[in-house]
Amino acid sequence: MPDADLAPDPRADALATLDAKFAAMPPAAAMRIRGVVLDDDGLHLHAPLAQNVNDKGCAFGGSLASVLTLAGWGLVVARLRMAGRVADVYVADSRLRYLLPLYADIDAHARLAPGEDWAAFVRCLDERGRARLALEAEVRDPAGTVVATLAARFAALRPSR
Amino acid sequence: MPDADLAPDPRADALATLDAKFAAMPPAAAMRIRGVVLDDDGLHLHAPLAQNVNDKGCAFGGSLASVLTLAGWGLVVARLRMAGRVADVYVADSRLRYLLPLYADIDAHARLAPGEDWAAFVRCLDERGRARLALEAEVRDPAGTVVATLAARFAALRPSR
Repeated sequence: MPDADLAPDPRADALATLDAKFAAMPPAAAMRIRGVVLDDDGLHLHAPLAQNVNDKGCAFGGSLASVLTLAGWGLVVARLRMAGRVADVYVADSRLRYLLPLYADIDAHARLAPGEDWAAFVRCLDERGRARLALEAEVRDPAGTVVATLAARFAALRPSR
Repeated sequence: MPDADLAPDPRADALATLDAKFAAMPPAAAMRIRGVVLDDDGLHLHAPLAQNVNDKGCAFGGSLASVLTLAGWGLVVARLRMAGRVADVYVADSRLRYLLPLYADIDAHARLAPGEDWAAFVRCLDERGRARLALEAEVRDPAGTVVATLAARFAALRPSR
């Protein structure tokens, strides 16, 4: 019987791969963006306020946009890796709402948009070499109030060679 | 007759003030975002590719979002300064389209959305202590092709004290 402690964990592997990608992207590294939890419900990212503060002492809108966008992008990248697929993932478009100033670290959570389906997304990528997917993401403050939201579409493309 | 070379230039002053704000915001400083031209047609910002590159060697979507958002934000801040008004400026919402990958420095240009009017915006701020304004911004590649666009609304609030 295999030792469960030594068995490879596809979620931990996907999260570690994602953090390596963030560390290799200068703007994401400067914002100290890192993955926290990858589970059935989606992906959680974290970024400290100190590296992402604006002229008013709260979180910079561009940092909120970056963390929200990377939460969605990272969820697609992680899910494709767990499914054993190789593809480049791009953000196609997004809509952002900045609801309240955030005077705390940025904690973002991304998940599938209603009506979307991972299995259908992977099947489309396998059949056509490209696929699109809609995701939602939000940032909450320490009290649990939503302070910013993103709705975005991402495209995955299988490399031609 | 005053010496034109020594006369204060409100545009140069507003651009220098904006660059000081960018330099004081850690994420904008890390992306090396700076103002280039402020004229009747809007505001141009620049950010080098090296500080804003993603895992595929092109411009990071979060950096494009940041530069586009700051171009709009900066245009409002600069215009209010030139009009002698003091207000905090926030982005309220935005819609971003990522059209093509950009393998070059990020050059963004922001301007008023159709139907908007600086005089009406300043008048509303004077009368109500708050005002909203819609702006558009775009990033073009060195050949002049639009690679990303933003449509956003900004809010200006006069400090209560």
